Amino acid sequence: MISPSPETLKTARLGFDRFKHGLATGEWEAFLEMLTDDFTFFFPAGPYKGLNYGPEKLGEFLRYATEKVFPGGLVLNEERISGGDTTVIFEARSRGKMWGNPYENQVAIALEIRGDRICGYREYLAIAFTLPAEK
Amino acid sequence: MISPSPETLKTARLGFDRFKHGLATGEWEAFLEMLTDDFTFFFPAGPYKGLNYGPEKLGEFLRYATEKVFPGGLVLNEERISGGDTTVIFEARSRGKMWGNPYENQVAIALEIRGDRICGYREYLAIAFTLPAEK
Repeated sequence: MISPSPETLKTARLGFDRFKHGLATGEWEAFLEMLTDDFTFFFPAGPYKGLNYGPEKLGEFLRYATEKVFPGGLVLNEERISGGDTTVIFEARSRGKMWGNPYENQVAIALEIRGDRICGYREYLAIAFTLPAEK
Repeated sequence: MISPSPETLKTARLGFDRFKHGLATGEWEAFLEMLTDDFTFFFPAGPYKGLNYGPEKLGEFLRYATEKVFPGGLVLNEERISGGDTTVIFEARSRGKMWGNPYENQVAIALEIRGDRICGYREYLAIAFTLPAEK
């Protein structure tokens, strides 16, 4: 196993902080501008379940998440950070209201880093749930 | 972030290899003997959803998994490894038959290491699904 370089770690940290800000406030611009054009993301449930391509698709998904699913914001509390060569994984607890109902989960969010950009996002859930299929 | 020591990494690697062997074959003894008495584990779905305590409970869960849920075995293909201070996270693809139907997923499995033992296991799923509630 190779550890992430200080630059990789710095980019991932900045990216995760901006991601947390987006989830809490619905303001996604600062996070989205860090993505590469060939960015991919993987999400476990709902209309964006599976592998998705491109920063625009992620922007669409994230706005859907904060405008429709968690309109009051979702708060992420980081618990651990792990790293590989180009991957940094944040384990965190999430808390908020999903479709108006109290929601709490744990997530592992893997950010794939290239230089000062994020080229991949993979989300894994500790507690499985099902989202409505419609957008 | 602090990287895992060579000893931590070696223990995690051995543990994950034994875990894979167990999932594929139903033979869990070699993996279970690596667990500490105060071992805890977290699983996303089914009758063991949430936080569970003790090596005996995990043995019960793993035998349930390979005898009932995946009786033909589940194959894990490792894709990435990341590490923190005492945590090593394996991202892997899983493939097999769940309740007799083709099943494929991606998982992030975090092993918490203490010396040459495993004191914690947290599983996160890339594709949410629901397991029947009965054991």
